[in-house]
Amino acid sequence: MNQADMGLIGLAVMGENLVLNMARHDYTVAVYNRTTARVDQFVSGRGASSRIIGTHTLQELVDQLKRPRRIMLMVRAGTAVDTVIDSLTPLLDEGDIIIDGGNSHYADTARRTTALANLGLLYVGTGVSGGEEGALHGPSIMPGGNPQAWPHVREILQAIAAKVDDGTPCCDWVGEGGAGHYVKMIHNGIEYGDMQMIGEAYWLLRNLLECSPADLSQVFADWNQGELNSYLIQITADILKTSDAQTGGPLIDVILDTAGQKGTGKWTGIEALQLGAPAPTLTEAVFARCLSALKEEREAAAAVLAGPSGRATAPGSPAAFVEDVRQALYAAKICSYAQGFQLLRMAAAENGWSLDFGGIALLWRGGCIIRAQFLGRIKAAYDDTPGLANLLLAPYFRDAIQAAQPAWRRVVATAAASGVPVPAFSSALAYYDGYRSARLPANLLQAQRDYFGAHQYERVDRPRGEFFHTNWTGRGGSTASTSYNQ
Amino acid sequence: MNQADMGLIGLAVMGENLVLNMARHDYTVAVYNRTTARVDQFVSGRGASSRIIGTHTLQELVDQLKRPRRIMLMVRAGTAVDTVIDSLTPLLDEGDIIIDGGNSHYADTARRTTALANLGLLYVGTGVSGGEEGALHGPSIMPGGNPQAWPHVREILQAIAAKVDDGTPCCDWVGEGGAGHYVKMIHNGIEYGDMQMIGEAYWLLRNLLECSPADLSQVFADWNQGELNSYLIQITADILKTSDAQTGGPLIDVILDTAGQKGTGKWTGIEALQLGAPAPTLTEAVFARCLSALKEEREAAAAVLAGPSGRATAPGSPAAFVEDVRQALYAAKICSYAQGFQLLRMAAAENGWSLDFGGIALLWRGGCIIRAQFLGRIKAAYDDTPGLANLLLAPYFRDAIQAAQPAWRRVVATAAASGVPVPAFSSALAYYDGYRSARLPANLLQAQRDYFGAHQYERVDRPRGEFFHTNWTGRGGSTASTSYNQ
Repeated sequence: MNQADMGLIGLAVMGENLVLNMARHDYTVAVYNRTTARVDQFVSGRGASSRIIGTHTLQELVDQLKRPRRIMLMVRAGTAVDTVIDSLTPLLDEGDIIIDGGNSHYADTARRTTALANLGLLYVGTGVSGGEEGALHGPSIMPGGNPQAWPHVREILQAIAAKVDDGTPCCDWVGEGGAGHYVKMIHNGIEYGDMQMIGEAYWLLRNLLECSPADLSQVFADWNQGELNSYLIQITADILKTSDAQTGGPLIDVILDTAGQKGTGKWTGIEALQLGAPAPTLTEAVFARCLSALKEEREAAAAVLAGPSGRATAPGSPAAFVEDVRQALYAAKICSYAQGFQLLRMAAAENGWSLDFGGIALLWRGGCIIRAQFLGRIKAAYDDTPGLANLLLAPYFRDAIQAAQPAWRRVVATAAASGVPVPAFSSALAYYDGYRSARLPANLLQAQRDYFGAHQYERVDRPRGEFFHTNWTGRGGSTASTSYNQ
Repeated sequence: MNQADMGLIGLAVMGENLVLNMARHDYTVAVYNRTTARVDQFVSGRGASSRIIGTHTLQELVDQLKRPRRIMLMVRAGTAVDTVIDSLTPLLDEGDIIIDGGNSHYADTARRTTALANLGLLYVGTGVSGGEEGALHGPSIMPGGNPQAWPHVREILQAIAAKVDDGTPCCDWVGEGGAGHYVKMIHNGIEYGDMQMIGEAYWLLRNLLECSPADLSQVFADWNQGELNSYLIQITADILKTSDAQTGGPLIDVILDTAGQKGTGKWTGIEALQLGAPAPTLTEAVFARCLSALKEEREAAAAVLAGPSGRATAPGSPAAFVEDVRQALYAAKICSYAQGFQLLRMAAAENGWSLDFGGIALLWRGGCIIRAQFLGRIKAAYDDTPGLANLLLAPYFRDAIQAAQPAWRRVVATAAASGVPVPAFSSALAYYDGYRSARLPANLLQAQRDYFGAHQYERVDRPRGEFFHTNWTGRGGSTASTSYNQ
């Protein structure tokens, strides 16, 4: 009794692997699962270890723990988290700590942090990324919540986290309330973008070049040696060379093309809209999944709607097109990350978090799904210019896009001409071209709004905050829309 | 006393003009405004009429009304509506009717409908579109809420609404609860799309052709004679020929290019994400406004970030490029409306509304900001095929896009090459190409999710609902992610 360093509730794949990771780092973990057969199965199987203690009730779990007690929840985000918390809090003592390691919405985490503080309990909401393998071997961990909890959970969380080359753990305190889960949400939004853009690159090459999945596996393996080096590129190379045990053909070709989503990508888009932060590419990636889910509708539409006439082929040599697509992927990826960090900056201002953007990039440098060398460049950009408004303005990324943009523009143009959908590539290009435009046609939009709704406009030759209304038709009244709010 | 047909609260531009419209149709209206000086100013000025009665307290307003009392709120959406309702309900009797004509969120309207029903009062939440001019001369009106209210408000609302050519009013019952405000929200989302796409057309022509706003005014005036005929195209032609009284030059050129938003466009994007409905083009339009608002950042970025080298010019003759852009605008517009109606269809299923999609198109046929001949085509499409899954599949729109797509693809390619941002044009094209794709690269995405998170996938050669997991690395356990939810 009172011997375990950590309690963990929820023995699905992530929970189990985190327990094995903790035990491997010499922590003793008491485990509980609502379906208790799962506990027995685990401790008599993969989790057979003197450092892993199965329990069959929450009271039994709580009784196993050193004080202050630390209990990590790996249950489905949403009401299940509240249900477990409500069952748990009567069994705990002041100063005990609950850690939610699921994909909770940051607003829920902020609410729970406050509610538990009122009970004298400390709450941590932490993003954990890395999937099955990451949880086992070292995930990226993004904790936020009640800062008083950090000294009590720091050692164990940093021990099990991924380490970058110099040994720095991919785990550090993010900020108060929902900050940790917010950063995890942005991570997932960026992950959606990365996956969509890799899909677009794959689809362009597959459709416009005569090549097999095995050929493309080699392309991605080659790309993984350069500036695109990342976990997702590496696993794409692995996937494309995997054969199907049943048919003997490429496994990719028998997998159904309808993508699921767990919610965090959607939340990123919603959050961007709420804050007025331009994150079109991250959002296009979510909508691409929504469209993929309409499989039956797409099959029916394919029989009715025509594409461009003629067989689509890549311009120039296959090797040149492969290189163009690589550069397009890199440039679009930079824009996607720029959007994610821009959103994070606006969220920090909105929520009063003082986020360390370079530090966040470092958290993602290892362990998580979007881990990549690239993130070291982002860390360096924020180190060089602490108040950086947008990643696009950092010299390294500015030059990278400058070098890639002719190829990027050719690829978007080729996709448009050939009928291959590239919503993220083209959205990223529009974002880049919009962001670098001192003037945009929003003046016409403001004129329209003033024309039909007396919404007023500002002038380029007058100070901001001074509003004008034109009686465009000669018929309207003098009443401007500002008085609408009276 | 007891003589007024309607009470109206909130004398900003929309409220005043609705009152004048009702009075012109021989209805007597009692008016109230929180700042009561506004009441006196109105009834002694624009509202000087024996049919318009100023009041200085809510009790005075209520006392003026025939029974069942009908009171329309034209106050700022949000808590102000609740505040007015709370002040008003103690003064009302069973069966009295409150009508919210502001841009309320549909969920608020659903909540208020239920709350007032519990008090024995009838609630109507209605979209009103048409801006200043529409409110005065005949807006589009989209009422929903408590269906028992409809017989009591139908006559007056249909009397003041816009009429299409055959005299049909652009006002009919939409559905229960928040349905009316939902349809108004979709209207506004589509309006955002239309305005953004017109802006993109304008900006392409302005940047790639050597022409003045006056020249472009003529282009839009010409377009207004054809299939693009609509209020927004017409006012664009008006705007572009308007001179600035101060500088003598084109007024458009002195208007600041930072667009505002009142929330309904944002809500449409959020709702699409919540329902998993692909509405990328509507959402790109919102993000384009967000980007436009970052004026200072854009000015700084313009000095740092380069575009394509060389002076951008349109390919081919100016006249041919103008025609290409017109066709691109038309094709993109069809996709944008297809997204709006697709979202409406998914919302109807989610909320249990039996919406008449053709009827809704007819409500927008006159009076409102997006009014256009085009909407008659949408009505006809739903009349021809009541269960139509997507507007793109209707023969008329299928053929229209088929005719326009070579030009549309050229325009998106030209924009990509020349550095003019066209987020809505290119997003609409990706939507079209995605929707007509029986296969999309989402199979790669599913493979990635199964690789890193054991999320499982379906197979093209097995029934839906049967899930498979591949042990890609040979290292993972047998635990699949489905058990994560236990």
